[in-house]
Amino acid sequence: MTLERRTLYHFQLCPFSRKVRLFLYEKGIPFGLVPELPWARREGLLALNPVGDLPVLVEPDGSVLTQHNAICEYLNELVPELNLMGETAKGRAEIRRITGWFDSAFYMDVFKPLVGERVVKAMKTGSTPNSLMIRAGRDNLKNYLKYLDWLTARRPYLGGRWLSMADLCVAAHLSVLDYLGEILWENYPEMKLWYAIIKSRPSFNSLLRDKIAGIMPSENYANLDF
Amino acid sequence: MTLERRTLYHFQLCPFSRKVRLFLYEKGIPFGLVPELPWARREGLLALNPVGDLPVLVEPDGSVLTQHNAICEYLNELVPELNLMGETAKGRAEIRRITGWFDSAFYMDVFKPLVGERVVKAMKTGSTPNSLMIRAGRDNLKNYLKYLDWLTARRPYLGGRWLSMADLCVAAHLSVLDYLGEILWENYPEMKLWYAIIKSRPSFNSLLRDKIAGIMPSENYANLDF
Repeated sequence: MTLERRTLYHFQLCPFSRKVRLFLYEKGIPFGLVPELPWARREGLLALNPVGDLPVLVEPDGSVLTQHNAICEYLNELVPELNLMGETAKGRAEIRRITGWFDSAFYMDVFKPLVGERVVKAMKTGSTPNSLMIRAGRDNLKNYLKYLDWLTARRPYLGGRWLSMADLCVAAHLSVLDYLGEILWENYPEMKLWYAIIKSRPSFNSLLRDKIAGIMPSENYANLDF
Repeated sequence: MTLERRTLYHFQLCPFSRKVRLFLYEKGIPFGLVPELPWARREGLLALNPVGDLPVLVEPDGSVLTQHNAICEYLNELVPELNLMGETAKGRAEIRRITGWFDSAFYMDVFKPLVGERVVKAMKTGSTPNSLMIRAGRDNLKNYLKYLDWLTARRPYLGGRWLSMADLCVAAHLSVLDYLGEILWENYPEMKLWYAIIKSRPSFNSLLRDKIAGIMPSENYANLDF
């Protein structure tokens, strides 16, 4: 099947945009990237998606898809040859559990206080980060990483035996934190082995080449042998 | 097919618990309800779900399902005769868009500041609600209700021509706000017609009989002709 080119409107620091980018690459679906700053509420973006959130996927026929989970489920159906959702009903439930948990709880407990305060707030308003929130985000991060280390000691991939949406979702979140040098990989050896495998996939290449204006990536961000 | 009985651990004011309850009733899956207070972090609940969030569904074979979206997708597969996810790939994307948007953005913009401050905070700690947050939640609520009024003027159901997860999700959120008397139905006539239809479904009966300790329901909460 030859697939026509799609367009993804995204924000580099948005974990949901990164998840959909990984999904598109893994599925072998050609697409172009349009960078956006979500708080700019650019007219052209609002015309596509009045809610203004990212990512937004524009189909070859011009139809517009929004909401990261809806987009991933749609793309999984579009190219069924590579199934990223699991083989059984219980397997799918486990993959969606991990994905939904990271996209809601991890995002609120860790990503928003940490990345939101450390980086996005300064980009948006130039105001001073709230150090208490950053500390809370860092404390919460440790608990999630301990859980991931425990899980990856028991399974080759987060959702089970095969690569799935759960891996792409969690790696998307962690990749932003890793860019900012927030993950002490040596404390989580099993998780580190899992991340090294995900990071080596061709789909991850584009994320590793991301340069965020005004912020240098951590020393090992793009290093496959970290 | 005869289905064995399941157990749902839930919290009455939790919109995600309510969504799964509606889903189980619509699907005709027998289940028993166990009420929980999420902040109590009861040992028996943590043994089932170390994360401690609700709802939790225990299967007849004892296996445990968590994360509301994963549970709904699973239940939709379990009883495929009544499809609540849409007929086409694009249709499913639209249903999942609305559901994902309400479960994340509406929850953070409206539900958490409004219900969290007005009710849950007092139940948990007895401390005074933050009136600024309540006001912000009420302001945000108006925008979402205007959108729902616009959408229901164009479609019989939120996701299109048929009842879907989108209706059950949005009605679950709104039902809690309605219990607290936060919705001025007469300002949104199209949405009101839609809600009257959803509210009249047998699956909604159990929600309408809910009594939340210490809080009287609004005058028309259980009234089908409101």
